[in-house]
Amino acid sequence: MVTAASENEALLNAFRSAVGDENVVTDAATRLRYETTTYRTSYKVPAIVLPASTEEVQACVRIANEFKTPIYPVSTGLNYGYGSRVPTADNCIIVELSRMKRILGFSEDLGYVTIEPGVTQQQLYGFLQEKKSKLWMDATGNTQGHSLIGNLAERGFGHTPYGDHFGNVGGMEVVLPNGDVIHTGLGRFANAKAKGVYRWGLGPYIDGLFTQSNLGIITQATVWLMPAPAHHEYFYFSFRDHGQIGEIIDLLRPLRLNGTIKSAIHIANDYKVVSSMQGYPWEKASGRTPIPPEVMDELAKGWDCGAWSGYAALTGTWLEVASARRAIKRRLRGKAKRVAFMNPWLIRAAELVKQPYRLLTGVNLPEMLKALKPIYSLTKGVPTDHFMGSTYWRKKDGVPAQADPDRDGCGLLWCAPIAPIDGHHAKAIYDIVLPVFVRHGFEPAVAITLLTERALSCVISIAFDRAVPGEDERALECHDQLLAELTASGYYPYRLSTHAMDKLPPPEPAYAGLLKNLKDALDPNGILAPGRYLR
Amino acid sequence: MVTAASENEALLNAFRSAVGDENVVTDAATRLRYETTTYRTSYKVPAIVLPASTEEVQACVRIANEFKTPIYPVSTGLNYGYGSRVPTADNCIIVELSRMKRILGFSEDLGYVTIEPGVTQQQLYGFLQEKKSKLWMDATGNTQGHSLIGNLAERGFGHTPYGDHFGNVGGMEVVLPNGDVIHTGLGRFANAKAKGVYRWGLGPYIDGLFTQSNLGIITQATVWLMPAPAHHEYFYFSFRDHGQIGEIIDLLRPLRLNGTIKSAIHIANDYKVVSSMQGYPWEKASGRTPIPPEVMDELAKGWDCGAWSGYAALTGTWLEVASARRAIKRRLRGKAKRVAFMNPWLIRAAELVKQPYRLLTGVNLPEMLKALKPIYSLTKGVPTDHFMGSTYWRKKDGVPAQADPDRDGCGLLWCAPIAPIDGHHAKAIYDIVLPVFVRHGFEPAVAITLLTERALSCVISIAFDRAVPGEDERALECHDQLLAELTASGYYPYRLSTHAMDKLPPPEPAYAGLLKNLKDALDPNGILAPGRYLR
Repeated sequence: MVTAASENEALLNAFRSAVGDENVVTDAATRLRYETTTYRTSYKVPAIVLPASTEEVQACVRIANEFKTPIYPVSTGLNYGYGSRVPTADNCIIVELSRMKRILGFSEDLGYVTIEPGVTQQQLYGFLQEKKSKLWMDATGNTQGHSLIGNLAERGFGHTPYGDHFGNVGGMEVVLPNGDVIHTGLGRFANAKAKGVYRWGLGPYIDGLFTQSNLGIITQATVWLMPAPAHHEYFYFSFRDHGQIGEIIDLLRPLRLNGTIKSAIHIANDYKVVSSMQGYPWEKASGRTPIPPEVMDELAKGWDCGAWSGYAALTGTWLEVASARRAIKRRLRGKAKRVAFMNPWLIRAAELVKQPYRLLTGVNLPEMLKALKPIYSLTKGVPTDHFMGSTYWRKKDGVPAQADPDRDGCGLLWCAPIAPIDGHHAKAIYDIVLPVFVRHGFEPAVAITLLTERALSCVISIAFDRAVPGEDERALECHDQLLAELTASGYYPYRLSTHAMDKLPPPEPAYAGLLKNLKDALDPNGILAPGRYLR
Repeated sequence: MVTAASENEALLNAFRSAVGDENVVTDAATRLRYETTTYRTSYKVPAIVLPASTEEVQACVRIANEFKTPIYPVSTGLNYGYGSRVPTADNCIIVELSRMKRILGFSEDLGYVTIEPGVTQQQLYGFLQEKKSKLWMDATGNTQGHSLIGNLAERGFGHTPYGDHFGNVGGMEVVLPNGDVIHTGLGRFANAKAKGVYRWGLGPYIDGLFTQSNLGIITQATVWLMPAPAHHEYFYFSFRDHGQIGEIIDLLRPLRLNGTIKSAIHIANDYKVVSSMQGYPWEKASGRTPIPPEVMDELAKGWDCGAWSGYAALTGTWLEVASARRAIKRRLRGKAKRVAFMNPWLIRAAELVKQPYRLLTGVNLPEMLKALKPIYSLTKGVPTDHFMGSTYWRKKDGVPAQADPDRDGCGLLWCAPIAPIDGHHAKAIYDIVLPVFVRHGFEPAVAITLLTERALSCVISIAFDRAVPGEDERALECHDQLLAELTASGYYPYRLSTHAMDKLPPPEPAYAGLLKNLKDALDPNGILAPGRYLR
């Protein structure tokens, strides 16, 4: 008789023979790590399987089909604020791709690299340094250990003109839910010379099916890299009042649309800036949460960040950057509290002589330089762990040497609605966000990113301390309330946390029918990441 | 008893009640028009149905399913060189969308327009003029009556920085093969504010499925428009020898990759240039075809076009364009036979005073200005019928007042392989093309377009006279030989003519399996455009 236990053992043995005994992990401590993220979750993870190659991933998928058991792929599993490595359904076996770390192709002349899912931001950056490459990668504010493929599969974004990560993918290798492996675009023809450089290929363009979905496992991607511009500057601005957000967005819109500013523009309110600069001011707030308004005002003044501050990179030839600088000044001067431009020489000079710099440029750099440098680096695609600090905002012990927000009980939930770049919409979103945060007792840390020429993404962070009784529940309530009010007003997120997958209003029925149809056709046994964006 | 005739009558009656009697056309002359393109075809078209709305398109699709009869959608049916309006299978009923001509949405601030499939290049251009819009559309070299959606569905390209047509689609309305209608991206949520401005949406990105396929009928698309740049110039160059093509491509690559030149660069050999400037030189060639080399040399000299000549737009602020001009000069001077820059003032001046202009700039403008003006206009998105002339290259009677290449027996077959922007590949393609053309007796008119930052498309035209006995066969043979040799060397087209749909080498079996799976899931009765890119 086949018992559940023997069935389970047979399953694990099948995985063991596919990837090697040592790469099937079932100890309680490790399983707990895969069940834990920065908010409350309940799903159990029976095992973690670590394939080392596409063939081993295929074998895992075939085993899942044979045993009709769900698997849940993660790359390096550092999807902080959206669920880290925790599955979207109970009892999924994790298939983690962190051992697949090869950089398989590289062209300096054509600006691309072909990578596996285990390749991290740090690894690619090191690779390009080692090659003395004149190409820039794009980096996100996530840790250096973050998977590039993991991020592009979620359609994440960064800070250079190549910040739209999925938009800069030339082709993929994908393991389908039936265990087949395909190469998208022209890659399906083994001898195709334009593989990886021409993304649309021939016939239907299918790459998008494998992003934000559970229709395949991306096992390779060709990622385009940007030629380092002749000149790179960083531009920084701040505005005095929270109420100016509509005005700010409308001032910046034409500059983003017409390409004066070619990369994403990031705008943060004082809560967001302060929480990326320091920990929660327990003393000043006399141990209370949320932060009292007068304390916040004092901190914002100390960091000299205004109610809103923002930055973006300017890239191009010296003349192009000069032209952009002129257009930005013309548009923002007299409106903004401050507009400043920084280039490598200025930054270096400022490090040496902080006070004279202040006199010269009007920018107060004392501690801020510490924070500006990582941002400046990000705008040229240099990954950094700097921004993990804000995850520890409400933690009383501060940031440990080896940050691990999941392990350390940091609370973080993100909600990132998209809107047209239009002040009216930005203001409408902010007006929804504030009262929900006030009601739930969290600091409304809001960043608004002019993501593309036409769309902004409003990244709203709920940062809390999971160790405080009741906060887990309150944070989830806050998130759900936010999502409900935002979507009711037409502001849908660009990406979902594992917590939010089933919390959207229903789409038009025909669309839901099409997605069901696609899922059934590609994954009849429903073994791949059930509940991830699709059922 | 249901006879074939009565079944057929029932089918037509069903269409008549869906779209109105007058919009179901079955007369022999019209049917012949839909069976005729610029090369030999054999498929019959039993009827043409002209719906006026998405609902009527849905009704047509439902009727097709009910009667298990294939339908073949075209927008305005002007896909010259790739099959015009002729289906990819026998006995398809044409569903032509030319009556759906509404412009449904428009934003000057965010730069987009939402259109139906019957909206032509000319119509959108007129619309923008009427609105006194500061936005540019992108135009192709096809006629003004060409459908914008028809072109983006084929992933065609144009001449401005928004030349990648599918790459500038913000969302679609699609009628699925089961008759359902969906809205892609965030459009699936009726109240979504970012509909049309953020293309990836949420969850899998599916728009690509409906391009170069038979998986749906695009009934609306939001197309992004570019803010008119402060300054626009046109840059023109020529090279002396055919053998320099590799060098030319390598010289231009970094300028395209780093964004010095933001739009497609079009490079044409002398055959291509001459055939776009004039008809076949019957007298000089003493009535013979193909054109004798010495005659070609003489013509090329007359047009002063060199073995290769090219052009591209420069757009941006005055400083940006100045910076681009400088970079281009630095890179091409001493290598090119000629490099010239033209701006609106120069063009106007040149029209007034042709001879002084020649003295000033070294460019010989007499007749050439006539040809340059439409090209110059194309680089700023102004559609033109000018380029239809080349379709009549081998026709003895020249171009009629109302050109209609299908009706007039013009022979035209296109083959457009893609390669990385790398001189070695361009040369390899050219070395394949030449002997095939020589063997078949056609002029090797070749244009190479640096389509994206990394990929070039080589548009090879076989222009002939269908009225000459044997030419139809010879042209098809020439095309098939070309396609076979190019794909054997790894150069796959970016787009297929109806003639070539089944002429590719087989892809990896898993990929073919996936496409079959998708087609079966979405179109179980196989009623939609059988054979179009997919079975």
